[in-house]
Amino acid sequence: MIKFINLKKEIPYTIFREKYEEAHRKGQKNIEAVAISSYDCKKKEVESRFVNLKFVDDGSFIFFSNYKSPKSLAFESHNQISALLYWDSINIQIRMKSKISKTSLHFNKNYFKGRSLKKNALAISSHQSSYIESYEGVQQNFSKALNSSNLSECPEYWGGFSFVPYYFEFWEGHKSRLNKRDAYEKVDDAWNHHVLQP
Amino acid sequence: MIKFINLKKEIPYTIFREKYEEAHRKGQKNIEAVAISSYDCKKKEVESRFVNLKFVDDGSFIFFSNYKSPKSLAFESHNQISALLYWDSINIQIRMKSKISKTSLHFNKNYFKGRSLKKNALAISSHQSSYIESYEGVQQNFSKALNSSNLSECPEYWGGFSFVPYYFEFWEGHKSRLNKRDAYEKVDDAWNHHVLQP
Repeated sequence: MIKFINLKKEIPYTIFREKYEEAHRKGQKNIEAVAISSYDCKKKEVESRFVNLKFVDDGSFIFFSNYKSPKSLAFESHNQISALLYWDSINIQIRMKSKISKTSLHFNKNYFKGRSLKKNALAISSHQSSYIESYEGVQQNFSKALNSSNLSECPEYWGGFSFVPYYFEFWEGHKSRLNKRDAYEKVDDAWNHHVLQP
Repeated sequence: MIKFINLKKEIPYTIFREKYEEAHRKGQKNIEAVAISSYDCKKKEVESRFVNLKFVDDGSFIFFSNYKSPKSLAFESHNQISALLYWDSINIQIRMKSKISKTSLHFNKNYFKGRSLKKNALAISSHQSSYIESYEGVQQNFSKALNSSNLSECPEYWGGFSFVPYYFEFWEGHKSRLNKRDAYEKVDDAWNHHVLQP
């Protein structure tokens, strides 16, 4: 589930919310899963992974991560990303492009306090994407963290990322394959609308 | 559905096939949907979209597109991409990184001939991702193409893209959130295996 807070009253946000509610009513699984793609200027590499969207706060889409993970390093080297959702229950694809930045320490600390201790133990114990000898090693690190750490204190290497898209595309699949594509691009303070060919 | 042809006998391909068969047995919807992400060096922009994988031929993953579409231009400017699949029926995410290139004219022509005339009319009539006045315009262009074109002749602006990954990650979600991550990276002619922290 995604939590909506004071959602921006602008057309792509309104459509996003409507489609979300429709997919949710249809029992969409993993409705919060979004593919975040980044470009690392040093490695000259595009990379993608799914993360869970937690909030849409005003105009900002927010998810959480380890700040030392490869994706965090990629965001530092190139702060523009794409975000891609697909809800099969309503056959809708949503494409977004955005700049991305970290949320505040204050925000991270508050959010971390409210999470389950188990989730926090995992955030504390895992050096996200680093190599480890075996999956058993992962389980051992986790058990250690569960027993020893202060589990409501947010480590400085963990927190949120926030992105405010400058581009949305809503793609609706049709059986005829004449898919419907509506794009919204922010130019100055307005959203330009275009219909795209399938 | 993805068609497998003389699949490469190397470990990440074997795992890919096994997971595919498992997801297919569980009735996975849109099993062929893969998020392809590209970087356009001119626009300095990452962009992502879902496409349908059609073949895994030896070591090559193949999908089709309009060669004048924004993704084709992005591949020309930076020929490295990421490919991301998620099969919710078995809670598996597959992450790949690869170089990408066009398939041969001969291959494209042969494949085009075997497709339905309706699909071909769409490929011929649509200037993929170009602006158009309205969705009705899309329908009109399609109707025109259906009636007038030689529908089994592949236009030069349509064809396949092929990618042979140098990196695979198989991510298995666990309820405990201690997700299992196995990465395979091609170094010279061998696949190096690593377990990654969740």
